[in-house]
Formats: sequence, C-alpha cells, structure tokens
Amino acid sequence: MGGMVFIDLRDRYGVTQLVVDENTNKDIFALANDLGREFVIQAKGTVIERSSKNANIATGDIEINLTELNILNKAEVPPFTIQADTDGGEELRMQYRYLDLRREPLQNNLILRHRMAKLIRDYLDNKGFIEVETPYLIKSTPEGARDFVVPSRIHHGEFYALPQSPQVFKQLLMVGGFDKYFQIVKCFRDEDFRSDRQPEFTQIDCEMSFVEQEDILKTFEGMMKYVLLKIKGLDFPDPFPRMTYAQSMEEYGNDKPDIRFGMKIKNLSHIAKGKGFVVFDGSEYIGGICAEGCSEYTRKQTDELTNFVKKPQIGAKGLVYVKYEKDGSLKSSVDKFYSQEDLKKWADELKAKPGDLLLILSGDKEHTQNALSELRLEMGNQLGLRDKQIFAPLWVVDFPLLEWDEKSNRFFAKHHPFTSPKKEDIGLLDSNPKDIRANAYDFVINGTEIGGGSIRIYDSALQRKMFELLNFTEEEANSQFGFLMNAFKFGAPPHGGIAFGFDRLTSILNGTDSIRDVIAFPKNNAGRDIMIDSPSTISKDQLNELNILVAEKKK
Amino acid sequence: MGGMVFIDLRDRYGVTQLVVDENTNKDIFALANDLGREFVIQAKGTVIERSSKNANIATGDIEINLTELNILNKAEVPPFTIQADTDGGEELRMQYRYLDLRREPLQNNLILRHRMAKLIRDYLDNKGFIEVETPYLIKSTPEGARDFVVPSRIHHGEFYALPQSPQVFKQLLMVGGFDKYFQIVKCFRDEDFRSDRQPEFTQIDCEMSFVEQEDILKTFEGMMKYVLLKIKGLDFPDPFPRMTYAQSMEEYGNDKPDIRFGMKIKNLSHIAKGKGFVVFDGSEYIGGICAEGCSEYTRKQTDELTNFVKKPQIGAKGLVYVKYEKDGSLKSSVDKFYSQEDLKKWADELKAKPGDLLLILSGDKEHTQNALSELRLEMGNQLGLRDKQIFAPLWVVDFPLLEWDEKSNRFFAKHHPFTSPKKEDIGLLDSNPKDIRANAYDFVINGTEIGGGSIRIYDSALQRKMFELLNFTEEEANSQFGFLMNAFKFGAPPHGGIAFGFDRLTSILNGTDSIRDVIAFPKNNAGRDIMIDSPSTISKDQLNELNILVAEKKK
Repeated sequence: MGGMVFIDLRDRYGVTQLVVDENTNKDIFALANDLGREFVIQAKGTVIERSSKNANIATGDIEINLTELNILNKAEVPPFTIQADTDGGEELRMQYRYLDLRREPLQNNLILRHRMAKLIRDYLDNKGFIEVETPYLIKSTPEGARDFVVPSRIHHGEFYALPQSPQVFKQLLMVGGFDKYFQIVKCFRDEDFRSDRQPEFTQIDCEMSFVEQEDILKTFEGMMKYVLLKIKGLDFPDPFPRMTYAQSMEEYGNDKPDIRFGMKIKNLSHIAKGKGFVVFDGSEYIGGICAEGCSEYTRKQTDELTNFVKKPQIGAKGLVYVKYEKDGSLKSSVDKFYSQEDLKKWADELKAKPGDLLLILSGDKEHTQNALSELRLEMGNQLGLRDKQIFAPLWVVDFPLLEWDEKSNRFFAKHHPFTSPKKEDIGLLDSNPKDIRANAYDFVINGTEIGGGSIRIYDSALQRKMFELLNFTEEEANSQFGFLMNAFKFGAPPHGGIAFGFDRLTSILNGTDSIRDVIAFPKNNAGRDIMIDSPSTISKDQLNELNILVAEKKK
Repeated sequence: MGGMVFIDLRDRYGVTQLVVDENTNKDIFALANDLGREFVIQAKGTVIERSSKNANIATGDIEINLTELNILNKAEVPPFTIQADTDGGEELRMQYRYLDLRREPLQNNLILRHRMAKLIRDYLDNKGFIEVETPYLIKSTPEGARDFVVPSRIHHGEFYALPQSPQVFKQLLMVGGFDKYFQIVKCFRDEDFRSDRQPEFTQIDCEMSFVEQEDILKTFEGMMKYVLLKIKGLDFPDPFPRMTYAQSMEEYGNDKPDIRFGMKIKNLSHIAKGKGFVVFDGSEYIGGICAEGCSEYTRKQTDELTNFVKKPQIGAKGLVYVKYEKDGSLKSSVDKFYSQEDLKKWADELKAKPGDLLLILSGDKEHTQNALSELRLEMGNQLGLRDKQIFAPLWVVDFPLLEWDEKSNRFFAKHHPFTSPKKEDIGLLDSNPKDIRANAYDFVINGTEIGGGSIRIYDSALQRKMFELLNFTEEEANSQFGFLMNAFKFGAPPHGGIAFGFDRLTSILNGTDSIRDVIAFPKNNAGRDIMIDSPSTISKDQLNELNILVAEKKK
C-alpha cells in the first residue's frame, strides 16, 4: 500500500486494524514490514476513525495509528490458515489443535460453553442446590457400559475404575442429607468408538430428595428455560410438551422425537392387510408417513429413498410409496394390489392432501418403527424442516422399567437398576415385568436426547427385588451395590434426579454438528488424542511398579 | 413426657422440634411413639412458640404442633450417633460415610466448599476468565510424581494417564489465544500415601497471557481477598505481604512461613562459635529462636523440647537453651563454655528480654533451619500463637529455578520445567545454574502452601535449554513435550499462571485439621475407599479385553 502498512491484530476479543505510515515513523514501518502471520506483538497507538469502514467486525469503524511496536514472539507459517473458513483438514487441525483453537468459531464455542456452565451453576445455586465433587477413582461394576480401569500400585492386582456417572454417589449424598445436589462432572465410558462419541464426556448431574417426578421436571425445565433464554434469547413461557414413551414410539418411531416438524408415523396395518399383497400380509406392522408436497418426486428420488431405507443400519427390505397426485388420483408402487379407494383410506389415515407423497414400510414392529423414524428424519432434512436455529424441547415420560434381551435371555434395566417402577404398576413385578412403567423421563431437543433421569428406589427390599429381576445373584448384588443397599437401611429419603449431556447440549444450542466442536481437546474416533499422541506405551519400570504385564498380541 | 412426644426433626437446614399431644391426636401420638432414630418422616402442623426456648439453634424459639405424620422410611439404629460430637471412630465413620455426612459439621464443610467454588467462579468470570475443561485421559510423563495410568482396550499395550495437573493444556490454551483461563479440576498423583494426602485432589488452575509476575499476584490476590471477605468477613485492605524465598528460609527455616507470629530464626553462628564448645564449633550453622515468657520452663519441659527436636522426622542431635531469668541473669545448658556476656550477645541478637527462653540448634544449614522451623511452630502451638481463626496470607517470591539432587547427581526443576528464569539471572544459565532465581511464587496462609505458579518460558529455544539442564535427552524432551515445543514455534504469547489447592484452601478457611473433612468421599491413608471397597479385583474378562495381566506377587 505504498507508504502504509496495515496489520490485522487478532486477540480473544476480535480483530483490530493497526496502521503504520512510513512518513511518520520509519522504524515502526520497517518492523511492521517484517511481521509474519501469527506473530505475537505488543502495540501502542492512537485510535482513529477508519476511512473504509468494515461493518462485519465490531472494531470495523476504527483503526489504530501505531506509535510503538514490539515483536514478542515470532511464528513459523502455520500449517493451515487461521480464519473462520480454514483450509485445514480435520486430521491436521486435530494435530495442531492449539492453532485450530485460535479460529473464531472455536473461540466462540468454548466461550459459549463457559457461559452455559456458569448460567447453569448460577441457576442451580440460586435454587439451593450445592455442587459436591464425587470421586473419580471408584470401583468397577460390570453393569452397563465398559469401565476404564486404573491399576493400583499399592494394592497388588487391584484396580480403581473411572466413573461412568456419579450415580451411586449422588444417591449416597441423598442418604447423607444433601437434599439438592448437582455437579458438572467428567464421566468415562470405554465404548467401541462410534462417530461423535468421546471416551470422556461431561455431565450436568443432579439429584433431589423428597421429590416426585413432577418436581424434577419442573425444576429442570426451569433450568433449561433459563439457559435457552440467556443463550438463545428464546422465551418459552409454557411448560415444555410431554409425551409418553408409548406415544413417541408410535408416532415418531423412537424415544427422542424431533418435534420441530409433524409428519407423524401412522399405523396402517388395519387397512393395508388382507388385499393379497404378500409382503404386507406377512408383516407384523405396516406404518407410513406423509411427505407434504412431494407427489412429484421423480423415479430417481423415490429410488434414492428406497436405497436409503435399505442401508444396513436401517435395514428395511423395501419402500412402498403412494403419490397423491394434484388431480386427486393416487399412484403407488403397489397398484396391482390396491384400488384407488384402498389407497385413499391410507391417505386419509395419514391426513394427506393432493400433492403429497406417502411412504410406507412394513416388517416386525420394532425395526419398522425405527426405519420409519429414520425415513421421517431424512424427509425432514430434504424438506428443510430441521432448522438448527429452531429449538423444540420436550419431555418423554413413562419409559418401560425393563428391556428384554433376546441374546442373553434376561431383562436389563432400561434406565438403570435404581429406577423405581410406577406405584400403580408394582403389582406387575411378578406377573408381567415387561409392562411395568418406570418413573423415568428423558429431556429431548430436536431429536437428540439431552438428559435423562428417574425417581429412584429408596427401599432396600424393592432394590433387592430389582436386582433379582435383572439376574444378579445375591452375591453379585452385594459385592457391587451392597454399600448402597446397606445405606438404604438407615433411613433413605425418597429421591430422584437427572443428568444432562453437557457436550451435546452445548453443541445443539451452538448449532454445531459435532460435540468435538465444543470440546477444547477432543479425542478422534479411535479414542486417540493425536496432538499429544495418547494413548501411548509406558515404561517397563512403570509396568513393574504397577504389577501388570501387557499380554502378547493375539495373532 | 406424660402425654407428650417431642421429635427432633433434622434436615439440611437444621433441627426443628415437633410436638404431639396425646389428648389432641391419639393416632399421631401412637405413630410418633414408634419413631426411631434416623427415621425419614413427612409432617404437617402449626408453628407455635416454644415454652422452653433453645438459644443454640436457629429454630429454637418455636416448635411445630403436629396435625399429620407419615413415616417415609424406617431406619436401623446407626452404628454411631449422628451428632456434632459423634461417638464413632474414624474408620467406622469412613465406612458409613453417608451417615457421617449427615452430621452438621460435615454438612457445613461441604456447603462451605460449594460456596467457595461458586465465589471463585463468580470472581474469575467477572474478570473475564473463561473456564475450559481439559482432558482427563492424557499421556504419561515421567517427570514429577508418579502417574495413574489407564490401559487402552482398543490400542493394545498403550495407556492413557490421568493428569497430575492440566499444566501443558493450559499453556496450549494460551497458545490457542484464550488469554484468561481457569478451571476447578480434579488432579491425580500416585504417591506413597502420607497422612492427609489424597490420590485425587482438586485444583483451582489458572493461566493468563500477556502478563508479568506482578499481574498474576495482583489478580489472584484480588481473588483470595474476595474469598476471605465473603467467607470469613475479613477485609484485607493492603496488599498481602511478600517475602523472598531467601528471606523465608533465613527467618522461618522453610518456604511457607507461618507469619501469624514472630519468633523469627536468627543466625547465631558469628557469635556462638570459637568458645570451645565442640558441637557448635564443628557446625556449619547455628541458629536460634526466642520463646517469649518461657524462662520458667521446667526441666521436664525443656527435656520434652529436646526430645521433640530429636525425633527422626526432625533429626536434630540436641537442643541448647538459655533461660533469660526475670532478674536479668542468663542460665544455659552450655554455661561451661559461655560467659554471661557471651549469652547476653545471643539474647540481644534474638531481641530477648528477661523472662524469655532462647532455643538454639546447630548442624548443617539446611537441616538445622528445617529443625528450627519445626521447633518454632511447636513453640507457636504451645504459646497459643496459631489461632485457626486468624489468617495470615502472604506471597513467597523469587524461588530458585533449579534444585540439585545429590542422589541422582542432576538438577530438578524446583517448580516445573516450564518455569522461566528471571531476566537478570539468565546469564547464569551456563555458569551457575543453581543461583538462578525463577519467576515463581507461592501463596501461603498460616504456614501452609495454598498455591504456586510461575511465569512460563514461551520461547522454544529457551525451553529446550531448560530440558538440557534437567538432563532430558533431546529424544525424551521431544517424545514427552514435543507438541508443546512445537506449539511455541507458532507464536506463543508471554504467559504465566498459578494453581491453588482447593481442598487445602477450604480446610484452612474452615479451620479443620484434615482435608478429608472437606471432601465428600475421601480415601483413607492407604488410598482406599473403605465405603465402596475400592480398589478391588476385576474380572478375568476385563483383564483379557484390556490385554493386560496381573504380575505374580513377589515373595
């Protein structure tokens, strides 16, 4: 720029333009000419009005005319450009995470995360909750996901485990008389890594005494409203919607419905069977959705949808569609078996109008509902009904207490073994356990489960009964949870709680796709921190001290 | 009480007296008579004025005349009484920690801890700090204490380590442009357990960019003043005192002086040598303290002090005392060698007056200073000068950068390897490393180190030089801290920070002796949680999955 140098100075608070005029200060001009990208500098000058203003940045109306300039640290050219739309691939940015963190989107994400944690702490503190730190070096319990374990050097052959959640400890705090507890806390799960899971994650963990389900829902609805108001400026005046688990499965095909849009699933079994179409006639369940205004989908588009539902992770065998043409006629892929009147019944059941497209799946009920759910979400995407800046929270309630596992031929706890059955269903404990509903609830936003909890069992006899149902031997129950059942003998108050996934909540409110974007130093999908190269081998001396050996690799 | 039953109802907020009159409600009376200790009840009634008031409790002026009573849960008789002055031994109370937590002192401790964390977060948030969560599954580094490690199931033979502190990550956050970071965070150290150490502990971890030592001291002095004001009602208007490491060692015999009282150590070498007393003449250092008003200590008392300094953990060979009698004469255990004038010189050096007792130790300088420090603290205790409700905070500054270890014949970092040397001492790096002072500081209250930190090296060349001094091979330095030194190449800002021990800080402000009293679920001195019985063995399946074996016990 002839006799002028312009410098974009970036810090946590934004970018400010510095300017040096060769005529007024030759030394500074020379130094400024030597600056490279990402140099760390110290500068003084006079704030002046900018001639060509930049409306996109907060300081775009001004620039600083330098009178002093020091280079505090030089920088090598970074491996990717440090700007909002970087040219760095994900792997490279993970390796240089400290440089990636300089980019404005990531700065904002972590600042948002901090603000959210602060708001949540303020809210709960104000409601009389106290934050209590529970231990990280605890005891391994085989129930649930796999534990990460920590070998003890002092106690030969013994191990601590990292908590999958502070569940037991928060219940013990209730027994200990802390009637309102919370903690924002790291938890650990040694899972086979799926995309967007982290081996360590953060939970907003809460528990209250002398409460029923209604108290928990009201309290934490208040908290979520406060966060939504403060962070997104959204004022939800009414209570969040509530839906039973049964209704959610029936209408949305899953237990975390995205209610930003309708397109509810309808059971068509009663009107689609018995017309000679073998696939439907042999199916336990036939269900459909109505995609508004999609009757003109091309063959290519319907084929793509068919391929979508046939993907192994969805697993439908095929897709039946009915085009409700604008002229009122109905055209389907199964015209051979169904008359216009038959198809009209389906359309009516799905509240379709001319111009809509009906999409129908069949098979066993569970898998078909699941596939319909995926198809519904896909159509929501295609129709632009899943705007990330729209937030649709709700509670899903009345979960089943137990889940039957075909493989191991036993019940598992749907929520966890401490969840209490509904009083009115307790009679079913012996006769029909799978129909028992639990005092369990999930908090869902935009089709993502953000939180879940339950009212707990506080009676040691009932807890013992639960362990029996879950196939624990008395010995196993005692060795793993004996201290909890013992604790319940000494006057446990009725209590219940909830835990929210803080990474997920932040990422949803942030409108980001991955929780990695709201974690300062995340692991990759293989559970590896590629910046510090961890996990890694440790020395023989360390292994010796810990009294452990690494097993030979199986070939 | 004839036709009356009185019930002490305890909750988190205190104890309230309930009363039932047989004449007005026979059913409730019968039920109330059946209540046992620690039963959980639900009660309704009318608040009435109490005839015999109890001024010791907040609700002592009233009682509640019951109109409704439900037993929510019964309780077995607890193994110890749940009251402030319990009859339970420590082991028993640890085993039933959930019952111990019901006692008022422990309730108050954890509530205090919560309040302190809240205040600290409020203060730092208000100053523009953001709390960033750093990872728990990191990488083992042999420098410093032993790491706890976590075997990786997916990466055969590899291990994560639990952080001893988030040191490296907070420095990377500075490189990442987060100029004010803090975190209240769990840290882990696998040490041989000493009394009142915990394998997991909580740290208030802080870091700032573009700062010098003075900025850090001012910022966190502000934070500590805020906490002292809000928690203890103590307003410290002036800056906290500062003392150099050298002065602290000279006058208090250690680097964490208890300045609630004087009784400073004086070097007497120049006036106590050369009078024929072989013990002194052969000593590198002779130092003493003056115990005010103790000239009438009996033989038994001085013998006890002699035994005290001869304890193995103090290790002095003997104690010389001089009684400065009220009549002005001086009587010592070494009268044979020293005249009244000689002794008077000692008394003058120690600023003693008639009625005081001089206590003198000799030997090599380091051990003697340490022993004098212990003796001084003991005399402080005996004279009641260490009131737990008095708080004397200060900064100790100008620590040495390096510490020579005789055994391994090498330097260790006194603070840690990232601490920067003082600019004016950098010339000594090659010639006289042990005299280099660091930009390192400790925060001390009442003789306990509560926090410590430093201004860091932000130049990768200087960091490499430090690793050399610390005997790291280039390979070791690269494999352990390569990512940090790499990060420094891309424009690291000048930065520094501090970390406070949150357990210790809470326990000091709380006036409790042990950090265990301010931790909800502490481990015992063997690192064991005896309530949940952890660590414990894990199943063969788990070991197999993790690809590790437990080594045979050495016999």
